[in-house]
Amino acid sequence: MLPRGRPRALGAAALLLLLLLVGFFLFGRDLEYGRLRGSASLDGELTWDHNRSACVPLRSLQPKCELLHVAIVCAGYNSSRDVITLVKSMLFYRKNPLHLHLVTDDVARNILETLFHTWMVPAVRVSFYNANEFQSQVSWIPNTHYSGLYGLLKLVLPDALPPDLVRVIVLDTDITFASDIAELWAFFAHFSDKQMIGLVENQSNWYLGNLWKNHRPWPALGRGFNTGVILLRLDRLREAGWEQMWKATAQRLLLTLSTTSLADQDIFNAVIKEHPGLVLLLPCIWNVQLSDHTLAEHCYSEASDLKVIHWNSPRKLRVKNKHVQFFRNLYLTFLEYDGNLLRTELFGCPSQPPPRAEQLQQALAQLDEEDACFEFQQQWLTVHRVHLTFLPLDPLPSEAHDVTLVAQLSMDRLQMLEALCSHWPGPMSLALYLTDAETQQFLRFVEASTVLSARSNVAYHVVYREGPLYPVNHLRNVALAQALTSYVFLSDIDFLPAYSLYGYLRASIKQLDLGSQRKVALVVPAFESLHYRLSFPTSKAELLALLDAGSLYTFRYDVWPRGHAPTDYARWREARAPYRVQWAADYEPYVVVPRECPRYDSRFVGFGWNKVAHIVELDAQEYEFLVLPEAFTIHMPHAPSLDISRFRSSPAYRDCLQALKDEFHQDLSRRYGAAALKYLTALQQSRSSA
Amino acid sequence: MLPRGRPRALGAAALLLLLLLVGFFLFGRDLEYGRLRGSASLDGELTWDHNRSACVPLRSLQPKCELLHVAIVCAGYNSSRDVITLVKSMLFYRKNPLHLHLVTDDVARNILETLFHTWMVPAVRVSFYNANEFQSQVSWIPNTHYSGLYGLLKLVLPDALPPDLVRVIVLDTDITFASDIAELWAFFAHFSDKQMIGLVENQSNWYLGNLWKNHRPWPALGRGFNTGVILLRLDRLREAGWEQMWKATAQRLLLTLSTTSLADQDIFNAVIKEHPGLVLLLPCIWNVQLSDHTLAEHCYSEASDLKVIHWNSPRKLRVKNKHVQFFRNLYLTFLEYDGNLLRTELFGCPSQPPPRAEQLQQALAQLDEEDACFEFQQQWLTVHRVHLTFLPLDPLPSEAHDVTLVAQLSMDRLQMLEALCSHWPGPMSLALYLTDAETQQFLRFVEASTVLSARSNVAYHVVYREGPLYPVNHLRNVALAQALTSYVFLSDIDFLPAYSLYGYLRASIKQLDLGSQRKVALVVPAFESLHYRLSFPTSKAELLALLDAGSLYTFRYDVWPRGHAPTDYARWREARAPYRVQWAADYEPYVVVPRECPRYDSRFVGFGWNKVAHIVELDAQEYEFLVLPEAFTIHMPHAPSLDISRFRSSPAYRDCLQALKDEFHQDLSRRYGAAALKYLTALQQSRSSA
Repeated sequence: MLPRGRPRALGAAALLLLLLLVGFFLFGRDLEYGRLRGSASLDGELTWDHNRSACVPLRSLQPKCELLHVAIVCAGYNSSRDVITLVKSMLFYRKNPLHLHLVTDDVARNILETLFHTWMVPAVRVSFYNANEFQSQVSWIPNTHYSGLYGLLKLVLPDALPPDLVRVIVLDTDITFASDIAELWAFFAHFSDKQMIGLVENQSNWYLGNLWKNHRPWPALGRGFNTGVILLRLDRLREAGWEQMWKATAQRLLLTLSTTSLADQDIFNAVIKEHPGLVLLLPCIWNVQLSDHTLAEHCYSEASDLKVIHWNSPRKLRVKNKHVQFFRNLYLTFLEYDGNLLRTELFGCPSQPPPRAEQLQQALAQLDEEDACFEFQQQWLTVHRVHLTFLPLDPLPSEAHDVTLVAQLSMDRLQMLEALCSHWPGPMSLALYLTDAETQQFLRFVEASTVLSARSNVAYHVVYREGPLYPVNHLRNVALAQALTSYVFLSDIDFLPAYSLYGYLRASIKQLDLGSQRKVALVVPAFESLHYRLSFPTSKAELLALLDAGSLYTFRYDVWPRGHAPTDYARWREARAPYRVQWAADYEPYVVVPRECPRYDSRFVGFGWNKVAHIVELDAQEYEFLVLPEAFTIHMPHAPSLDISRFRSSPAYRDCLQALKDEFHQDLSRRYGAAALKYLTALQQSRSSA
Repeated sequence: MLPRGRPRALGAAALLLLLLLVGFFLFGRDLEYGRLRGSASLDGELTWDHNRSACVPLRSLQPKCELLHVAIVCAGYNSSRDVITLVKSMLFYRKNPLHLHLVTDDVARNILETLFHTWMVPAVRVSFYNANEFQSQVSWIPNTHYSGLYGLLKLVLPDALPPDLVRVIVLDTDITFASDIAELWAFFAHFSDKQMIGLVENQSNWYLGNLWKNHRPWPALGRGFNTGVILLRLDRLREAGWEQMWKATAQRLLLTLSTTSLADQDIFNAVIKEHPGLVLLLPCIWNVQLSDHTLAEHCYSEASDLKVIHWNSPRKLRVKNKHVQFFRNLYLTFLEYDGNLLRTELFGCPSQPPPRAEQLQQALAQLDEEDACFEFQQQWLTVHRVHLTFLPLDPLPSEAHDVTLVAQLSMDRLQMLEALCSHWPGPMSLALYLTDAETQQFLRFVEASTVLSARSNVAYHVVYREGPLYPVNHLRNVALAQALTSYVFLSDIDFLPAYSLYGYLRASIKQLDLGSQRKVALVVPAFESLHYRLSFPTSKAELLALLDAGSLYTFRYDVWPRGHAPTDYARWREARAPYRVQWAADYEPYVVVPRECPRYDSRFVGFGWNKVAHIVELDAQEYEFLVLPEAFTIHMPHAPSLDISRFRSSPAYRDCLQALKDEFHQDLSRRYGAAALKYLTALQQSRSSA
């Protein structure tokens, strides 16, 4: 097992050569599509066994660290979730740098651009292409497939992708990898001079044209090909005039056939029927098709044969298949896989680190692991993956005075969502701090809730968990940045606003004639219920009655009165009109502000002082605080969160919080100069009185 | 790609033969250990590169579906957790049936036997061997390694394992697979006639003997071998008189060396130094050793090279290594991997299904997916993986009258544990319903809590989540079955008992002279606080004062008075001595009963009637209900759980619960005959009055 110099190396080279020759002799020629025509394929008696034996590893033939290109068409909210599971499975097995070419609509682009930017996977480059630009090239084709117009866009890839891009693997979003994509890429080496499209045969009987009476599929060779996985030689397609080729075929066929049923797949097959020499047949294990009643199970004889699974049934995971449990578990593995674990360096292949990654690595490396506040510093520097608008969103056109409720939560507050929806009919932008597996629980929770499923103006932004402390202010900033209205109500998830608040706020903004130029923070007075079965007050009068009866309290009256004292509850009781109040130390009211308000300081992680710092910032920027006389919001009781109980009792935790406050005030002085002096003085006073 | 009959098959056979010959020519002879002696190894200038090239896939040489044998020595709570992560990684990549041979102490056996029994992984057989039986063979060897006596037990495997077992792979518990174990097994084919042990060279400088002044390691060839991964030809070892061999060597060396520092590894190396012909050197990628400052990184040049990772540093995951992030992510992948997903059939290899699995499959297949109560039936039939005593337990010897608090919880009630510990100093048996990933959050939570870390009499039993409904009664049964005391207090996680309750219950049991023959259920009256900041009453007098002041209520007085009415709170107020009460419909008190009490009916999943059914069962078996005059427990407020809010509003859910009740009563009639009539009558009365 030890090197003995040259003779050994020569031996290895000889082995490679032998493999190459023998491999080519055995398989190379069969891969030519021409041979298939005279064979068993067309009379329906396929024996799939030999497809397997073609899978001798071919990696060794490829240059190590070769950049592989993958193109995916992706549109809308749901496909954007699907594509992430596909990408996770691909990244789990890949050993090469990848370049993803994503043809997207605006929705998918917004989601995926943010996702990849924050995912920071080394040795993965992502380029976006605007689907709208190419739609006109396919929109004239009548199509009844569930993928809609977007399925057809695969036809325009030779035109849409950069002219110097030669090879690309094209994938549907409902694909799951069970192997290294480089093994698939290796089939490019098997293309003859004339071949330009690599495809797996279709595993359903669709193109045989006998599924029902008068079933008239588009023309195809035998059972046709499936376009869920395609290898494209873009250079050759361009040279051969692909665009003219498929357009001419489609136009001619549409004279007799009314629509395509299977989108791009019908057209690919029709072109191939006319030009069979274009195609290299790929082994069927590279696109095991799980539509109902397919021949897929003849394609593999053991789990280790499977390379790529294609969930091409409209029933998706509920498809009937002999081995569906196996396939489903593979899919669930990646659906729930912690994407953070895919951030590992591809250490055999040198690659440029993703933007920001290098500075971050350096900053993290400079932290002192022995520092008592190490966890705080590390958490602050952590870049969380962000999946914006995890669920479909369909907001109404925003009015000038509209207000979005902004809040953040983790799994243990999910049960607040229904009540919150019943109290706030307006738009919401919520950041959820979840693991990949928890996103699926969240999804099922929303699907099971008629209240939540009915809402189309609630945006859920998933921030993926990483690190021991709750990044409360980063979450707030994510939700705040996604608000689509001119005003935002900065709330917390355990508060239920007055039923009337949404309407009242819009009316107040209009009435007060707040231009977006005016720096105003409207204060919504906060109360708390210690009873968990509260009959919620429907008016200010009812609220005051409950307050007098001792069923409600002003918020944190007993443990943290400074937080809301400046709101002046006594004055509010009598007030008929908005009144101005002055900032004081530790003030942290719930406010309505223009969307362009300052962001939260994201170094405050875990619990404590996170809202206080934001209110200081508002005051430093000379926002007026105006208390609204009819507005109120009530904190609902709950058990302390895991995060809070883990740290509340720790003196080290409080010391770190103090250090954060000090840093914050130093920054404040730098930015606002002498004007910031009052905050420091207030802090010192509060510290000496404590 | 299509079969062309014989010529093709012959070609494939020729390729195999070629591979075999070339492979043997290139590597076969080098694998003989003898050659190593004259090579670079011993002068410390190893070039590891060629180790990699030995990894030409050898699977094709092995019979498909060959049963592979793996032996692991495992003792104690923490190693039992480690071994599961190892097994998950092995199962994830394996394609062969496996037979695990586990040499365990009583603790590990109890944990792992239950785990594998409930895991029901197809094509995995597990045999247990009692470590105690073999300890005397190694206990005479003075040893300072952290693995203690158990590390040494690897020496006795040829003796301990069945005499007809010929080959076995031996693994340490701190191993993670990154590849198919069959590739490792394939090296058995490379053993020469005289070789019987396959090992990877040691990647630290330990055996070079110059780590510090007077560092005198045991003798070894060069840098010696690492025994974290061993291939053993058991037949040859037995024939060669292995036992005499290693004992003679160890005895002779212990005359001059005081102890072994590395347990079995020192002895294996010493024997090999004397008999180098025994060893086949394995490529280093089959045991990449992550102890600090190792040569491991010279062993692989890219991620795809790695086959097996060995966390053999006492620092474990915090070890310093250039690529530790990569290794850590691989480890975390399996640590958090949903073990349920490994239950998939090995469909290329026919195998006997695990015990119970077949009936279960049939029962599940018979369910009607369209039935409104399908989810209930499916949940009831689900076999949950169970990991008993997930954390170390060290209970005091139990007294005759001792009582264990029994309860169950999921992640959203974790924050109750600290308060519960402060209220109940006695033993507890808790079932936790968690995902694999959540167990790690739970572990970190306990480690971060000084209150919880200090307790050694709280047993945590993890039941792994599967299915949409909370299997409340199954969880109760798991916790109940693990109680080690004569009596159990059947509680719920959101109740805090009186501070005095543990002492008072033991005294009462003693005083009432309850032999375990007497069927008595001691009732602990239940109250509730609607305030989440309750100053907990320290006596009955204080409790009554709070009750009178309206700060406390009898439990569910407003929504479900029938549940506790028979306890007779008015009488309790005045009572000075225990008093007997009669069962009535819907009674569900919290009771203390002998550990041998009837189990809960596990068909009640989700929420509703689960305790009621158990109390009916107690009454049917003629348990007396005795209310204790000084006992009380208080329900603490919390937000509704996800499970409850998901279903509480659903009429279909209530219908299914009704169906469960009906089934339960039918069973009751079958088992208790006419005596059970009163329960049915009571049910009908309550239904007509509802």
